Amino acid sequence: MRMDEGKTLREESRRMVLGKMMSMSLDALVVTDLPVIRWLTGFSGSSARLLVTRRKSWLFTDFRYMEQAAGEVDAAEVVITARGFMAEIDSGLYPLGETVALQADSVTWHEAARLVALLDGKQRVIPVDTFFEEFRMLKNRIELQKMRRAAEISEKVLEEVLPLISPSVTELDIAAEISYLHRKFGAEKDSFDPIVAGGLRSSMPHAKPTREKIVAGSFVILDFGCIVDGYASDQTRTIALGRVPDEARQVYRIVQEAQSLGIRSVRCGMSGSELDAVVRGFIADRGFGAGFGHGLGHGVGLDVHEAPRISQTGTHLLRENMVFTIEPGVYLPGRFGVRIEDTVLLGPEGAVPFQRFSKELLEL
Amino acid sequence: MRMDEGKTLREESRRMVLGKMMSMSLDALVVTDLPVIRWLTGFSGSSARLLVTRRKSWLFTDFRYMEQAAGEVDAAEVVITARGFMAEIDSGLYPLGETVALQADSVTWHEAARLVALLDGKQRVIPVDTFFEEFRMLKNRIELQKMRRAAEISEKVLEEVLPLISPSVTELDIAAEISYLHRKFGAEKDSFDPIVAGGLRSSMPHAKPTREKIVAGSFVILDFGCIVDGYASDQTRTIALGRVPDEARQVYRIVQEAQSLGIRSVRCGMSGSELDAVVRGFIADRGFGAGFGHGLGHGVGLDVHEAPRISQTGTHLLRENMVFTIEPGVYLPGRFGVRIEDTVLLGPEGAVPFQRFSKELLEL
Repeated sequence: MRMDEGKTLREESRRMVLGKMMSMSLDALVVTDLPVIRWLTGFSGSSARLLVTRRKSWLFTDFRYMEQAAGEVDAAEVVITARGFMAEIDSGLYPLGETVALQADSVTWHEAARLVALLDGKQRVIPVDTFFEEFRMLKNRIELQKMRRAAEISEKVLEEVLPLISPSVTELDIAAEISYLHRKFGAEKDSFDPIVAGGLRSSMPHAKPTREKIVAGSFVILDFGCIVDGYASDQTRTIALGRVPDEARQVYRIVQEAQSLGIRSVRCGMSGSELDAVVRGFIADRGFGAGFGHGLGHGVGLDVHEAPRISQTGTHLLRENMVFTIEPGVYLPGRFGVRIEDTVLLGPEGAVPFQRFSKELLEL
Repeated sequence: MRMDEGKTLREESRRMVLGKMMSMSLDALVVTDLPVIRWLTGFSGSSARLLVTRRKSWLFTDFRYMEQAAGEVDAAEVVITARGFMAEIDSGLYPLGETVALQADSVTWHEAARLVALLDGKQRVIPVDTFFEEFRMLKNRIELQKMRRAAEISEKVLEEVLPLISPSVTELDIAAEISYLHRKFGAEKDSFDPIVAGGLRSSMPHAKPTREKIVAGSFVILDFGCIVDGYASDQTRTIALGRVPDEARQVYRIVQEAQSLGIRSVRCGMSGSELDAVVRGFIADRGFGAGFGHGLGHGVGLDVHEAPRISQTGTHLLRENMVFTIEPGVYLPGRFGVRIEDTVLLGPEGAVPFQRFSKELLEL
């Protein structure tokens, strides 16, 4: 990505945010969510507060990030503070206007209460929830480029780790390879701790990799993703080491068909819960409804889990340029589990997966 | 570690927490901080709420963690909920008493406000800050075993990666090796994203590793740690690739002496800011005060950054069985930086570093 593209992306983000602030009559907005701070300013450090006002923005961080902030941040004045954000606000150096919004779904109660007390009588503090959601859900061309690159890297990693899977390696060995190869192939890091769940552990949807060896004649669930330029990827494949029992093959086929049905069923204008219901009904009809206990999917972008939610409680309407996962699973505790996941882009013709890796049952 | 030791540790934790709840006249406590939930119940999943009452505790999580929670959690009843924590509380199934405390420094403002509204008129909701700090700061024998093991693994990783450093590898190559070896040597994962900062980038205290190659005749800062059984390690060494200029050697020596002075100066009963001042004064006297812009150190335990704070604003009094870092640095933007860090245990005879790796200037 060229530098000026990143800048263009951030300028557009700021325009949208300022527009919304005006429409809500907000004079100032305190941003505490780091991925959003990166999206608005370019700053990728791990400690910051961003104050957006209609005329000007300030990014507050500390000495540790002095050079990094100077190099990364555009369109906000960088304040390197030893006394901290709250003391800076208290200094009166930053004109806040009358109405200050605070990210209630990101800031702690403690920090919110301090800020409310500090501004008491001078400003009105407004809690805002999911303020950035509407912008983050719809990806533009530059964001999609980054997400495609992240998906490609994770697919390349999947291809590289499959030959390593054998009865002599552990789940943690494979997880270590995944994280290693993500960075080697150009990602910043994992988008979440890789899930590598073999044998009986495949029935745990969010299993933590263990020192257990991969067991022949059973499934291994591989669920991982990476971050490229601040944007996440997410994918899952379930593979078999050797031949699995017939019932396992049957469940695999049901999940595979359910996932394919999920992708084919996506339409602009339907809600996340409608899409979830289509796939949930299919799995229930085949007798495995109780084994599919999580939502069908979730949005992916600056965070690996974000809006829209594709689940029984998903109220967002699906729209063009949304990116979300479709990941049905069937989990039978004490026996095995299967999950298959792609991240899809909703385009004019329907949902198109970023992933190209086969979803046929692979028996290594 | 034997299983029963983990259980003993958790029983002790719960006794302390219940004692504090009684002394504060709290009937119930909602815990939102995942490392604390793990400390109290053993649950290591990434989504949970814990409700502690004087008679009983409940751990709320979702379907994805059903089997994991059943295997890990002791002394709390596991509730697998599809409707979510707030709806569970609203159900009235859990007797809360009159006074419910909420972790104000961990819960979001949004969630706190929802809970306050839900309980309005029935319970009094009390925000508590740093509720667990006093317990977490003082490490017991079992916790110290885990932390020693985490420190040993990271030291072993340091020994393995040093021979890889050359002008033909990038910072990200080294970072990928560090994360890989942590898992290979038995850690769960990194305790934070490894910092590998070569050449001019060594002057950025929290540099993100880049695709830049390591430059001969300059410093490389290696700052990393891992998690073992939920406990973190943290260490930094600055090494030279080839011979560095005389001024760089001189600054290295000052930081080395400052770090040694820091370790020698630790006394039970002194405050974090007093300790910080000793080392800060030493560096300032040698003319590099402006180059040391961050705190001297921080506590390490369930989180890699926790209390006590060893900085200009550190008010905690240092006590036996506290574990914290001593990590002075001097950063000269556009030129180079040096940081040396050990994690120390404050014992009866003073501070004893977990790390044994030499702090003499190593020129590879």
